[in-house]
Amino acid sequence: MNSDPPQNPSPIITLTTDFGHQDPFVGILHGVIMARWPTAKIVDLCHEIGPQDVLAGAFWWAASWRWFPSGSVHVAVIDPGVGTDRRALAVRLGGQFFLAPDNGLLSGILVPGVPAEVRQIDPQRLGLTALSRTFHGRDLFAPAAALLASGATRFEDVGPKTDHWTSLSGLTPTFDARTGSLRGTVITLDRFGNLITNLAPLTALERERPCPVLWVKIRGMKARVVGTYAEAGPGELVAILNSLGTYELALRNGSAAGLLGVGRGEPVEAGGGIGS
Amino acid sequence: MNSDPPQNPSPIITLTTDFGHQDPFVGILHGVIMARWPTAKIVDLCHEIGPQDVLAGAFWWAASWRWFPSGSVHVAVIDPGVGTDRRALAVRLGGQFFLAPDNGLLSGILVPGVPAEVRQIDPQRLGLTALSRTFHGRDLFAPAAALLASGATRFEDVGPKTDHWTSLSGLTPTFDARTGSLRGTVITLDRFGNLITNLAPLTALERERPCPVLWVKIRGMKARVVGTYAEAGPGELVAILNSLGTYELALRNGSAAGLLGVGRGEPVEAGGGIGS
Amino acid sequence: MNSDPPQNPSPIITLTTDFGHQDPFVGILHGVIMARWPTAKIVDLCHEIGPQDVLAGAFWWAASWRWFPSGSVHVAVIDPGVGTDRRALAVRLGGQFFLAPDNGLLSGILVPGVPAEVRQIDPQRLGLTALSRTFHGRDLFAPAAALLASGATRFEDVGPKTDHWTSLSGLTPTFDARTGSLRGTVITLDRFGNLITNLAPLTALERERPCPVLWVKIRGMKARVVGTYAEAGPGELVAILNSLGTYELALRNGSAAGLLGVGRGEPVEAGGGIGS
Repeated sequence: MNSDPPQNPSPIITLTTDFGHQDPFVGILHGVIMARWPTAKIVDLCHEIGPQDVLAGAFWWAASWRWFPSGSVHVAVIDPGVGTDRRALAVRLGGQFFLAPDNGLLSGILVPGVPAEVRQIDPQRLGLTALSRTFHGRDLFAPAAALLASGATRFEDVGPKTDHWTSLSGLTPTFDARTGSLRGTVITLDRFGNLITNLAPLTALERERPCPVLWVKIRGMKARVVGTYAEAGPGELVAILNSLGTYELALRNGSAAGLLGVGRGEPVEAGGGIGS
Repeated sequence: MNSDPPQNPSPIITLTTDFGHQDPFVGILHGVIMARWPTAKIVDLCHEIGPQDVLAGAFWWAASWRWFPSGSVHVAVIDPGVGTDRRALAVRLGGQFFLAPDNGLLSGILVPGVPAEVRQIDPQRLGLTALSRTFHGRDLFAPAAALLASGATRFEDVGPKTDHWTSLSGLTPTFDARTGSLRGTVITLDRFGNLITNLAPLTALERERPCPVLWVKIRGMKARVVGTYAEAGPGELVAILNSLGTYELALRNGSAAGLLGVGRGEPVEAGGGIGS
Repeated sequence: MNSDPPQNPSPIITLTTDFGHQDPFVGILHGVIMARWPTAKIVDLCHEIGPQDVLAGAFWWAASWRWFPSGSVHVAVIDPGVGTDRRALAVRLGGQFFLAPDNGLLSGILVPGVPAEVRQIDPQRLGLTALSRTFHGRDLFAPAAALLASGATRFEDVGPKTDHWTSLSGLTPTFDARTGSLRGTVITLDRFGNLITNLAPLTALERERPCPVLWVKIRGMKARVVGTYAEAGPGELVAILNSLGTYELALRNGSAAGLLGVGRGEPVEAGGGIGS
């Protein structure tokens, strides 16, 4: 991972924040980037991450970056610690780049077994010395992304290497040997009211006990796993392996979240096979 | 409509979905397109179509595409049948292209008297063989749009011609000969609470009975047609010919939807002249 | 300010509206611009300004434009008077351009002491003769922006100079000599429930009485000024100088708007030093 930066870097910078769309803060990030690098192509990955919901941000970020071309620079700003001494990190992994505060946002990207180079961003080295105390998206992360994506700054020059960072445990489900099932949580809801969990078939359950997931349980209700939404009966709560590779709970022509009255953080359990 | 694709295709791909902005699914579409065609210009036409509201999607899509330059590729993904055997269609019409599931989304575009070429997308021919069961926006429509807009695939090569497709009747108002009026429905609401109907002056009413529309009736209330919002009196419910070419019901400095307590699907009636 | 337009104009056009994202009106603006000027780079600055909230639009517009490169063209369409004889204005100021209806949107940009050239847009001169009565964003402002940003039309040619325009008083706080404090209002709320005021430390208070702002009062509650959100105690209402340069009222891990039950227009007062 110590090779030179690409000669023809991708012009793509993606933005993921909890800013919402009510005010022009996202637009200002675009302006800051284009003022430094007019040919940037900026993709708004998601700006409606729940306020300060670092876990959901980490989940969605990890689910999204692989769909972008090599050389892309991904910026995430969900930053309750802005203005404190929390560090800012830059990561090179799989030919792409990631910039975020060191608060766990990188938890789904910096996973065991995937080689990555992690650096602590040094604003001084980047010439970014006029930092406000409340908006490092504008004053640090956006300009750093422009410098990196344009090739004006090499990844090696953003700051010193580091070997520690904040990691959130809540992204990964755990295998319960007693029940033979997988235990996880609802990470977030989509606009259809589907409950998106962190239960993934290719993680703990299959490694420990190679059998397919047949059901997902929530609040004592067992939902069978189906292949498509259309297989669900009217009013039936089902579990479906979504396009992200995790299970979500859905109600045909309705809102699973509304039916169950649950939200993020709700415990869920997945299992399969005889007796489980 | 069988001419060669344009030599210098427009770089524009528009996206219309019911994904909302809560999660990064729209952003992932951008990534998929740019990974295949880095110079694409992607326009987010609308992503807040009501969940699975194919009729509203068809209405807005038909109201929007003419504002884009020749060669543009328009993608709509409101797709309750994803994962079933519903077909995916590609249309060439008026120098522009349209990609959508065959569920009625094309109802406002494939209208009688407008010459169009309709093809059934064959994912195999496009090399799109790894389709998920829940996200054909990402796995089929976005990459197909990139192939078509970039010129990598000719329209003739997306799949075989077809001469049938799903058409929704709810887009078009009907003329009631008994009352001499036009009957339609509220298609959708805008954020101001205005009720956007499918009543259009240049359709049935004027063809049958060439007189101007003077009023629109809803829930027994008759709203007079005015030229601008400013002509309405305080608290007056009025009808106005909007920029789309249909009538909408509006309340000055208020929400017509809130006043009437109505939503999409509500019957409306338009008429004019003596005795009607 | 009468020099020639830049030879290599910035390709950036920013859009600020109260259209929201529910329907494709913003997307149509993109189409209209790109149909006239395919290489435009369009930035959606903000489209969730409250319906017809010209004051908030003026506030956010003034807070944003400096982050964009020279030559950018900024369009704002919050336009309750569309269809009446309200004028459309074009402004050149600080190397950038601004297009808006003459209803006060320019109040934060056309401020005393900043040299600006103001012209009344003449649609006929621009060849924009087919104006609808309800959507001048599409029919006038977006095409005018494309003409100006592309260099097809010189600023001098958009219409005649004018020396008067609508100006809103509500953007600027006033100094109360009796109490020695600054009086302003809540302009808008952000998605975190923070109350964004127009109280700025570098305005009246410091000019009249050079001492730092130490507190902000709202509904009889005095909030102390802190440097970062993290300095607030649990449940404490604090005031913080935000990244825009004005004070906002915030509740740590909560919603100040929810706690106080207040919204835009609420009076606020700021002061500091002994006895005030």
